[in-house]
Amino acid sequence: MQPLVSIIMGSTSDYDVMSKAAQILDEFEIPFEINALSAHRTPEKVEEFAHSAKGRGIKVIIAGAGMAAHLPGVVAALTPVPVIGVPIKASLDGMDALLAIVQMPPGIPVATVAINGAMNAGLLAVQMIATGDEALYSHFVAYKEGLKKKIIDANKELSEVKFKFRV
Amino acid sequence: MQPLVSIIMGSTSDYDVMSKAAQILDEFEIPFEINALSAHRTPEKVEEFAHSAKGRGIKVIIAGAGMAAHLPGVVAALTPVPVIGVPIKASLDGMDALLAIVQMPPGIPVATVAINGAMNAGLLAVQMIATGDEALYSHFVAYKEGLKKKIIDANKELSEVKFKFRV
Amino acid sequence: MQPLVSIIMGSTSDYDVMSKAAQILDEFEIPFEINALSAHRTPEKVEEFAHSAKGRGIKVIIAGAGMAAHLPGVVAALTPVPVIGVPIKASLDGMDALLAIVQMPPGIPVATVAINGAMNAGLLAVQMIATGDEALYSHFVAYKEGLKKKIIDANKELSEVKFKFRV
Amino acid sequence: MQPLVSIIMGSTSDYDVMSKAAQILDEFEIPFEINALSAHRTPEKVEEFAHSAKGRGIKVIIAGAGMAAHLPGVVAALTPVPVIGVPIKASLDGMDALLAIVQMPPGIPVATVAINGAMNAGLLAVQMIATGDEALYSHFVAYKEGLKKKIIDANKELSEVKFKFRV
Amino acid sequence: MQPLVSIIMGSTSDYDVMSKAAQILDEFEIPFEINALSAHRTPEKVEEFAHSAKGRGIKVIIAGAGMAAHLPGVVAALTPVPVIGVPIKASLDGMDALLAIVQMPPGIPVATVAINGAMNAGLLAVQMIATGDEALYSHFVAYKEGLKKKIIDANKELSEVKFKFRV
Amino acid sequence: MQPLVSIIMGSTSDYDVMSKAAQILDEFEIPFEINALSAHRTPEKVEEFAHSAKGRGIKVIIAGAGMAAHLPGVVAALTPVPVIGVPIKASLDGMDALLAIVQMPPGIPVATVAINGAMNAGLLAVQMIATGDEALYSHFVAYKEGLKKKIIDANKELSEVKFKFRV
Amino acid sequence: MQPLVSIIMGSTSDYDVMSKAAQILDEFEIPFEINALSAHRTPEKVEEFAHSAKGRGIKVIIAGAGMAAHLPGVVAALTPVPVIGVPIKASLDGMDALLAIVQMPPGIPVATVAINGAMNAGLLAVQMIATGDEALYSHFVAYKEGLKKKIIDANKELSEVKFKFRV
Amino acid sequence: MQPLVSIIMGSTSDYDVMSKAAQILDEFEIPFEINALSAHRTPEKVEEFAHSAKGRGIKVIIAGAGMAAHLPGVVAALTPVPVIGVPIKASLDGMDALLAIVQMPPGIPVATVAINGAMNAGLLAVQMIATGDEALYSHFVAYKEGLKKKIIDANKELSEVKFKFRV
Repeated sequence: MQPLVSIIMGSTSDYDVMSKAAQILDEFEIPFEINALSAHRTPEKVEEFAHSAKGRGIKVIIAGAGMAAHLPGVVAALTPVPVIGVPIKASLDGMDALLAIVQMPPGIPVATVAINGAMNAGLLAVQMIATGDEALYSHFVAYKEGLKKKIIDANKELSEVKFKFRV
Repeated sequence: MQPLVSIIMGSTSDYDVMSKAAQILDEFEIPFEINALSAHRTPEKVEEFAHSAKGRGIKVIIAGAGMAAHLPGVVAALTPVPVIGVPIKASLDGMDALLAIVQMPPGIPVATVAINGAMNAGLLAVQMIATGDEALYSHFVAYKEGLKKKIIDANKELSEVKFKFRV
Repeated sequence: MQPLVSIIMGSTSDYDVMSKAAQILDEFEIPFEINALSAHRTPEKVEEFAHSAKGRGIKVIIAGAGMAAHLPGVVAALTPVPVIGVPIKASLDGMDALLAIVQMPPGIPVATVAINGAMNAGLLAVQMIATGDEALYSHFVAYKEGLKKKIIDANKELSEVKFKFRV
Repeated sequence: MQPLVSIIMGSTSDYDVMSKAAQILDEFEIPFEINALSAHRTPEKVEEFAHSAKGRGIKVIIAGAGMAAHLPGVVAALTPVPVIGVPIKASLDGMDALLAIVQMPPGIPVATVAINGAMNAGLLAVQMIATGDEALYSHFVAYKEGLKKKIIDANKELSEVKFKFRV
Repeated sequence: MQPLVSIIMGSTSDYDVMSKAAQILDEFEIPFEINALSAHRTPEKVEEFAHSAKGRGIKVIIAGAGMAAHLPGVVAALTPVPVIGVPIKASLDGMDALLAIVQMPPGIPVATVAINGAMNAGLLAVQMIATGDEALYSHFVAYKEGLKKKIIDANKELSEVKFKFRV
Repeated sequence: MQPLVSIIMGSTSDYDVMSKAAQILDEFEIPFEINALSAHRTPEKVEEFAHSAKGRGIKVIIAGAGMAAHLPGVVAALTPVPVIGVPIKASLDGMDALLAIVQMPPGIPVATVAINGAMNAGLLAVQMIATGDEALYSHFVAYKEGLKKKIIDANKELSEVKFKFRV
Repeated sequence: MQPLVSIIMGSTSDYDVMSKAAQILDEFEIPFEINALSAHRTPEKVEEFAHSAKGRGIKVIIAGAGMAAHLPGVVAALTPVPVIGVPIKASLDGMDALLAIVQMPPGIPVATVAINGAMNAGLLAVQMIATGDEALYSHFVAYKEGLKKKIIDANKELSEVKFKFRV
Repeated sequence: MQPLVSIIMGSTSDYDVMSKAAQILDEFEIPFEINALSAHRTPEKVEEFAHSAKGRGIKVIIAGAGMAAHLPGVVAALTPVPVIGVPIKASLDGMDALLAIVQMPPGIPVATVAINGAMNAGLLAVQMIATGDEALYSHFVAYKEGLKKKIIDANKELSEVKFKFRV
């Protein structure tokens, strides 16, 4: 089984956040790999990784990083595979990571999700792959239906809170 | 010819920014459509649009909006097609639009690019579609090579600036 | 008894904040309803809700949401009933939710209160309804007098702190 | 003819922004008054104004101010009439005025609209009064339909822009 | 003994911060008073207080408030006595209070200190009164010498930390 | 005639902003001096200035600076004379200068006014000196009355704008 | 043994952060000194320190400070020795200290590192000294190799996390 | 003549800002080179450049970039030569570039100067090289004296502005 998605992160301390992307891929039964690769501490590994990604069949890269978060942009510069960037909150409430990921210059996009939004990065990877996979597309539609059901169920609990003038 | 990408924007005043996405799609010969649709002023049109997108063969939606920019998120809620969000600078240097687009809650991702980054939105759409289209992939690789050449040429001009101690 | 105010929130996790609006309505004996409705996860429910609000006699809607908080604006787009938006602090100290709610484009206002300011949302709903209800108006005037008394009483406790040079 | 809405502003230099609220009220045929009143330079006038508002039949106050914008909150403290606050951009992109208006403490709400959002303040005043006036409500519904038509027309112009791969 | 300085705060919950101003005045043996007065909840009390301050011999007012902190500016508008404003951190890290206090429009200054900087507000009051009181001036000079001694002493503790290459 | 107030600024390019403080002092007939002194480029001059200020009869120092604005704090560290800081907008909308001036640590206050608020710095100097000068106090009270008259006059112009439904 | 690097900090409470710079210097066997010196509380000590630094053989100064962090800039103004500034997080997430250190005016640079980034300040001092010391340079190259090894080892741990679809 | 300093920038459009660093090096007669190199568009060139820098005798690298400014950090990751980062204002007032440069993770420092602060980057390079070059050190000391003279001269012009009460 060959991985279709590659999850990378700047430091193993980012794992708690980034594992949510892995859980989504597991749930959608999309083979993936996970690695820690630092744009700053292991730049040659990053380059090697980026150059080989397409050839190894990787269709989407999910890259998480904090602070002056260069990993997503650096990888995007080195590969034609689309890169999803996850800003990780390590300082300044994650605002530094968000700006360092989303404000890419013309020519090299990074598809940025919310601060610590690794779950959404996983879903976005699913959606990208589903553009060419109808079965996965159906799975994704069903997943969205499930989200609705959850909030409808949650609403039921809420409906049990009593107020004198609640109708 | 059926469109593969749909470019939408909250207001026709966003056209100057959003046309850069269209130019990229034109350059990559990807059929697309452009429409102004407001999450706030024409919500029913937005819903109709989002519900029909997948069925009409749309593979990627590019949505631009400014201020409290709800259009990308609202469309993403209504369709399984991946949505790329372009925050448009209309107030607060575009920071309001950026946060209103990128900070989506778990379950509904929007692939966000830089403030006014419509050109990158176009390229990201190309990359998404190229995950299932090798010819387009080759075109994208060539495009990136072209970017390199441009900066190498620009460097030549820079090389002509004289300083006494410039080597 | 028909509800006059409808409290909605993007997620049941917003309940702790939003319950303060309910408490105010209870105190003013204004019938109300509470529901969790997500602009992103249950968009059709939101639409149905918004379209039916006026017909069901709802005079004011109070909508709370966090992050890229679209719920208040989306509902405001779909109904002529005035909408009060409560930005909920879930990330970035609530600044993302504040901007995503208050920076509405021309044509679709949302009456925004402070971050986590659900109590004030309740009071604002009372004031809006009181524009056409003199009894409620008198109740509100009395309530404000009560606030004064509370701070005057609190001042008494403060008056017992001793310093050598306090007069 | 007695005014139902009172528009006040901290300085006559705010008039260009605040006149958009007046235009909306004119369009909806709601009698109104306009005055410059400074929380800082004419505090007694502000007090007199606030104390008399309800008795003179004012149903909604629209207050605009810039910088450390105290006018909306100060007036809200002195009257039970609902106050809509318009943050005016005079420094720091209007962020100082926005925070000084929206972040009101529990007990004294100000219904805040976008930075320079006086048009929306006018519409919100219409919506508040319409909670007790069915004819005005119908007028507001028609107005919203008009907004839709405008954007649909604008879309037509957009439809004439030619691209080679535009479908 | 008549108070020379008046410390006011928007809410008794601000007392922990504001007591540091009182401690400074106590240390400098300057008679003072402390009260909770809300610009929003007890506006008439605030007015009465401000109008009487000069006549009662108050030379400096220290006013602390959080969120949309109007108290210092409102008091400054009503009295010729100089007002020192203390932004209190209650939300947004105190940035809302800072901007709502410091960004006063031309004509009505508030002498603003750091977020939660009540100790410095006390010292600034001492400095203002010392402009006309040579004995107090000497006391203040001695106090500053004491601060130096403290940091010099602290430095001694620091000098005991051992490193192999510390000289 | 000996100066009572000393206006200093980090660079002569700050003169346009700082001259407004001078105009106020001229209007109140308070003798003053003006100098450019850089905390970074002429630190010894700053030190000499600060050490001599009290002895030369200076009662208040007004210090303006932009960017990493150290001048007000550095002077405040070197003299017991109260220092009023004026953040000058040179970059980042003046936010860097504001924070570098207002966020002084415990022990060394700087009385900070609004970004570019030199006029208010002049008025605050007047108020500080007036704590020991009843004639100046009366002048200041008269000045505030004049401000009220100006806004009342401005209001008259505003009263001539016609709307169909303006009452 | 004469110190080559001098670590200074505005307050001994900054020691926990600043000790990381000391650990780096220890590791690289570079003799150093550590002192607490306040730009605001002991300005004469700071001046004496800065004026003597070059003569005592100091090659690099590392200065840490929080809030309105003037120490690095003040020292840089007084000595030709290069100064590395460490913004310390004490309020506003460290943003005030960052801006007060990095935004130095033309003529007086401070080499600024990340908020609380004292370890990097130590490494930067090593790099500066290594520009004239080949042995130290080799040590630094080896250190960077060590960082790579650490992240490669960390990656191994990460490789043991199991997912069903992890390849 | 071999270059000692290398100036690089992400785009030739950064030249107007970055030329100020070149002017300083010219003034100090330090041989240098200038090139445009994009971390995102010519990553291989950047790598080649960084790997060869030390061997070619480069002692300091000055790297300027805007938006999600990765160039300084990426180069710092690839070479032991110290890197000075210049955040260039291209969007968000340069705040995105500042955070993307200064917030480097532990292990890889970038010596960051002010937004658009290329002149200071040049001076910092001079100071770094002067740590091992006494003649350059003397030149730098003389340069700082010149800055003082300039501000003292500017002060003379300022001394000619007349006010009635200026002493």
